Amino acid sequence: MKALVYEGKETLEWRDVPMPVAAAGEHLIRLRAVGICGSDMHAYLGHDARRPAPLILGHEAAGIIEDGPQAGRRVTLNPLVTCGTCTACLSGRENLCPERQIISMPPREGAFAQFVAMPERNLVTVPKDVPLAKAALAEPLAVSWHAARLGLEALHPSMDRRALVIGGGAIGLAAALALRAMGVEEVTIQEPNALRRAFLAERCGQRVSEAAQMHWPLVIDAVGYAATRATASAAADPGGVVVHVGLGDDTGGLDIRRMTLQEITFIGTYTYTAQDFRDTAQAIFENRLGALDWIDQRPLSAGADAFRDLRLGRVAAPKIVLDPWS
Amino acid sequence: MKALVYEGKETLEWRDVPMPVAAAGEHLIRLRAVGICGSDMHAYLGHDARRPAPLILGHEAAGIIEDGPQAGRRVTLNPLVTCGTCTACLSGRENLCPERQIISMPPREGAFAQFVAMPERNLVTVPKDVPLAKAALAEPLAVSWHAARLGLEALHPSMDRRALVIGGGAIGLAAALALRAMGVEEVTIQEPNALRRAFLAERCGQRVSEAAQMHWPLVIDAVGYAATRATASAAADPGGVVVHVGLGDDTGGLDIRRMTLQEITFIGTYTYTAQDFRDTAQAIFENRLGALDWIDQRPLSAGADAFRDLRLGRVAAPKIVLDPWS
Repeated sequence: MKALVYEGKETLEWRDVPMPVAAAGEHLIRLRAVGICGSDMHAYLGHDARRPAPLILGHEAAGIIEDGPQAGRRVTLNPLVTCGTCTACLSGRENLCPERQIISMPPREGAFAQFVAMPERNLVTVPKDVPLAKAALAEPLAVSWHAARLGLEALHPSMDRRALVIGGGAIGLAAALALRAMGVEEVTIQEPNALRRAFLAERCGQRVSEAAQMHWPLVIDAVGYAATRATASAAADPGGVVVHVGLGDDTGGLDIRRMTLQEITFIGTYTYTAQDFRDTAQAIFENRLGALDWIDQRPLSAGADAFRDLRLGRVAAPKIVLDPWS
Repeated sequence: MKALVYEGKETLEWRDVPMPVAAAGEHLIRLRAVGICGSDMHAYLGHDARRPAPLILGHEAAGIIEDGPQAGRRVTLNPLVTCGTCTACLSGRENLCPERQIISMPPREGAFAQFVAMPERNLVTVPKDVPLAKAALAEPLAVSWHAARLGLEALHPSMDRRALVIGGGAIGLAAALALRAMGVEEVTIQEPNALRRAFLAERCGQRVSEAAQMHWPLVIDAVGYAATRATASAAADPGGVVVHVGLGDDTGGLDIRRMTLQEITFIGTYTYTAQDFRDTAQAIFENRLGALDWIDQRPLSAGADAFRDLRLGRVAAPKIVLDPWS
């Protein structure tokens, strides 16, 4: 099969690789859509020690079961492969499984390829009327869905359901969409880039703001750097909640004195539970997360160009989705 | 009346001051016991801009209503004076009241004095058989009770009720006592000072440890410095909770990368709600927080010596309680 292989810093090559082999309980999936994540970009730039070259990146994928009795079933892929037997898995917090793996990180190859092998329990059926490119958004949207859910669960019942989202990339936009789907009526996305702001407002119908605004019961930091954490810990109301998604700076930024004197809660979040993934997919299928018509679709064979364009800030859309067969 | 007045950096003077005047809804309290808090020491060292000299410090107090129909009622004092009408107050989170005041911080004088004026609703009746020196512990114990309660409420139901407390001062010891009273069976206090460790083990019956231990569902940082936060964020289990009490370093220490990848929650806590204060007092009265026989009792007139001894590390007991009339 063909795959887009990460060969080293800023180098991707579209070339032949061996077909993946489905283990017991797994299916071979013919991939039809796979999104580019910030973490793929991070690895592409040589900044992720967990993803050494050569490696097939990509973990936001949808496709079709290739063979066996279920051949032809259209599915979106939960890329998080967990043991299913530990306390975390058994309590519905699979993302905390100590054995967790994710495709695109050794020992599992990723989905920037024509095929991938996935366990049966990681597959969610996609209805006929939902395009696979849209279904591939389940993964990034689930990250934000999970963050929004944890934030709202931690919020004291006396507080208003109003939220600030810091960062207008795919995760920030998805967090705003998830919050709205969960009944939060007032959501503002803070985004310094004017072009991105305009896109969010005009194409995605979001309320946007350039500068930091204060006084939010819930703040979702969808960027994850010290500077955005400083903004988040200043913008949260007394007794409020900051939810953190992202792996920018490892430390710093939080105003711990204010968080202590004003009892602000900080929640680190990573990926999603299996239930969050299924709930997100269902919300997509039922159009509860909006039209999701802001995807930039391209062939995977031209994936190297897509990464370059992203790197150079030439992409207005929050998400590029690649097709391995076009 | 006489009071121990903070006159400037490391200077306390036992001298005559004007009698306090009880406003409408307040009582004049003849104080019989007032503890020394870490925040009093902080102010004494000139490190607290919120407590400028000259000022009467002290906020951990118990005494007797001096006059009026309730004269003779023995009471312990919730030193947090709040508006009673804002959203925070009405939702039982009085400690988040934007108008909150605490005695020992302007505009309210503190309790290192023979009398103080307090609102009626800040008073909790002390049963006859409970010494006022013990009742004065309600305040510091309530700080830890509140922290322990918030931590346990945030802990996922699937996780073991096991906790590490960092720091074996009064707040750390009180956190361990509160956790035990709330049904947590395994609690370890991490304390680097060998003398303090011995006191906690032998006099207070606590399980202690010198070095940082790993793998705790709940960690209470009862110190509040960058170094203890680093320990806390390393020691918490995936999906666990770190509760933070204390105002040491303003920023730094938390391993945000780990907290994100392992979904660790950090909760800033400050003081207590009115209900937490009442619950703590009741737990003291019912001996659910242990014997509380580790108090070092001294006359308030010798308060300057007590501060000096604390400063020089000469005090083994976790708490000194002063008597303004002995």
